[in-house]
Amino acid sequence: MGHVKSLKCLICGSEYQEDEVEYTCPKCGNEGLLEVEYDYGTIKTEFTKEYLKNNKNYSMWRYLPLLPINDASKIGPLQVGFTPLYDVPIIRKDLGVRNLFIKDEGRNPTASLKDRASAVVVVKAQEVGLNDITCASTGNAASSLAGATASVGLKSYIFVPKNAPKAKLTQLLVFGATVFAVNGTYDEAFDLSISATKEFGWYNRNTGFNPYTVEGKKTVALEIAEQLNFDVPDYIFVSVGDGNIISGVYKGFFDLLNLGFIDRMPKLIAVQAEGCSPVVDAVNGDGIIRPVIPNTIADSISVGIPRSGIMAVKYIKESGGFGIKVSDLEILNAIKYLGSKSGIFAEPAGSTSFAGYLKALNSGSIRKDDKVVVIITGNGLKDVDSAMRAVKEPIYVDPTIEDVKNKLKETK
Amino acid sequence: MGHVKSLKCLICGSEYQEDEVEYTCPKCGNEGLLEVEYDYGTIKTEFTKEYLKNNKNYSMWRYLPLLPINDASKIGPLQVGFTPLYDVPIIRKDLGVRNLFIKDEGRNPTASLKDRASAVVVVKAQEVGLNDITCASTGNAASSLAGATASVGLKSYIFVPKNAPKAKLTQLLVFGATVFAVNGTYDEAFDLSISATKEFGWYNRNTGFNPYTVEGKKTVALEIAEQLNFDVPDYIFVSVGDGNIISGVYKGFFDLLNLGFIDRMPKLIAVQAEGCSPVVDAVNGDGIIRPVIPNTIADSISVGIPRSGIMAVKYIKESGGFGIKVSDLEILNAIKYLGSKSGIFAEPAGSTSFAGYLKALNSGSIRKDDKVVVIITGNGLKDVDSAMRAVKEPIYVDPTIEDVKNKLKETK
Repeated sequence: MGHVKSLKCLICGSEYQEDEVEYTCPKCGNEGLLEVEYDYGTIKTEFTKEYLKNNKNYSMWRYLPLLPINDASKIGPLQVGFTPLYDVPIIRKDLGVRNLFIKDEGRNPTASLKDRASAVVVVKAQEVGLNDITCASTGNAASSLAGATASVGLKSYIFVPKNAPKAKLTQLLVFGATVFAVNGTYDEAFDLSISATKEFGWYNRNTGFNPYTVEGKKTVALEIAEQLNFDVPDYIFVSVGDGNIISGVYKGFFDLLNLGFIDRMPKLIAVQAEGCSPVVDAVNGDGIIRPVIPNTIADSISVGIPRSGIMAVKYIKESGGFGIKVSDLEILNAIKYLGSKSGIFAEPAGSTSFAGYLKALNSGSIRKDDKVVVIITGNGLKDVDSAMRAVKEPIYVDPTIEDVKNKLKETK
Repeated sequence: MGHVKSLKCLICGSEYQEDEVEYTCPKCGNEGLLEVEYDYGTIKTEFTKEYLKNNKNYSMWRYLPLLPINDASKIGPLQVGFTPLYDVPIIRKDLGVRNLFIKDEGRNPTASLKDRASAVVVVKAQEVGLNDITCASTGNAASSLAGATASVGLKSYIFVPKNAPKAKLTQLLVFGATVFAVNGTYDEAFDLSISATKEFGWYNRNTGFNPYTVEGKKTVALEIAEQLNFDVPDYIFVSVGDGNIISGVYKGFFDLLNLGFIDRMPKLIAVQAEGCSPVVDAVNGDGIIRPVIPNTIADSISVGIPRSGIMAVKYIKESGGFGIKVSDLEILNAIKYLGSKSGIFAEPAGSTSFAGYLKALNSGSIRKDDKVVVIITGNGLKDVDSAMRAVKEPIYVDPTIEDVKNKLKETK
């Protein structure tokens, strides 16, 4: 059995036992996101630095005592997490910074951070006896769910906006998901999947609706902390759509603070695209989330109604962080800069955090010697059409060395 | 300093010291591939099971004593290798087999096994004082080289056939490589890059020309062996283009045999597409490689003149293995089967090995209780257009639950 104490509504404070509630707070409706609370006292006796030192499981499951899992036999075989935290020497030199780290989440099984949430959800569904899981997604949550269900023999039913990038759709179909391409936005797909959950009795993985997605995602923070030997960074830059990932990052550090592994929280910096910035506007303004019509190249964070927005705003403010907006051009330039100076290929939503970092550095919001982690949430291979807009064409040559010499001269 | 004893020509047996030769045997020309020979006696004193047990480096560099590296300070930051070896429970159940394992090489930094070779080559270039590296490639070797050079601040000059999949071209350009899209085949691009090496003084990474690519690639075998606790599999299925990867797999097990870690070699099974099978034809026939005009969807193994062909044929025969040909349709079906029953998304050349495994199993060439490892060489995100040919379209719906119900009924 896991160490979950209760699920507590972020809005009204009502507490529930695990088996009393499925998704959001029954009193507050879909706004009433539930925080998963743990029995830290019990966890402390098991989860120690010695425990980690002797733990040879280099995946997100090395943090099992901190996860809401009651039946560990249902954990799937895909190796999720323990992605690299790079010290990016060429970028450091170029920018004149000494303490920059990049967490490459594109290295997960289906190439995004979302695999962490899906890995947990697949266990939770089985714990309540359900073998059919649905979700709405801009793409990554869906492909992670479809991959995770395929690996354990469950079924997935996915609602995506029909304009989702082709690579993400392809992943879904290869993983054998039943894919509904919705003639509408992500926000409409989201509502539709909730209706389908009620209609068909499927288990629902939706981000910011299912309380356990944040718990899966927090493992990225646990890893960052351990990879930095529990020396907490000053800032963590996170691309924000629904606000679920940044909430997970907060939760991971919050757990470690309560367990005495760290002595302070890092400041969380939310980065959004200028064309879709409800969370950043709320954080930097009056704290109120106001839905928008999204307009950005970064599909994974093109979320007009951020479902974990209230939670994200609360956590970002509590951490002492702030929000930054970047343009689509800055996002594309960040893909190119990051790729050509580190070998890390980010999708647009993945590089948004890095674009925000560059902006914060240039504007003086953070200092050159601050210790900073930038999380790259997804691999660029998931959206090569956008990446192509960031780069120049190749040099077309005939298969002769003379042509190579001539063309090389022209480009210099 | 590393433990390389000499480089020995596969054709004439001439031996050279490391600093006496750059690429192939000067006496035998481009056919004269050099085998890297090690001082196993010295390595044995350092590289032990105890050494591995205490080694917390979970990347290909945990095998440093077995690699041809003289200046370890030049190793790049990207975390290459230690990819998952899965026991794929759903596939095992479906096929009624008990000892199947899948090695997912799509989890490497640029999403293919080639990262292992590029990681070594980037060090070797710097050891001889060169900062410009060139290669010809069907795509993956190139993107791995471009990523590796970007991560350490070197330059890459890449020759690819102009019809290389878009995702691979995009990776190259994002990593800042100078990309020559050659109006010709991979084989023409290969020759062109050799000319360019002479013309411009660049270091050359070409597969089956640079003797160190096999050494990088052998780390996949070292990992498989360690992940199986040195209990050698009966068969290893490998997709074959140039023949360099399967040569690397042989070399890794050969090293371990000489060091006393294992007591026998696994049988190596080369899998090629029906439309491009010079290595398989040689292995199953008279041993002579005869160039072909390639015609297959599997671009990464679409190699008419296999540059490591002689080496591969020798090694496969010495292992007691054989060759299998599969159709493009079998390759596409294997992508879908693998994805939907394991959550592993393979590119066409990546799934070719698995298609060969299915064929061998169905034909009785191997038995259900044989211990088998299938290596998936690259991630399907690198070629989604091909994958789309393997799957059905999504179900297009309007954002109403009624439409979902109707469409779902129609598809059942």
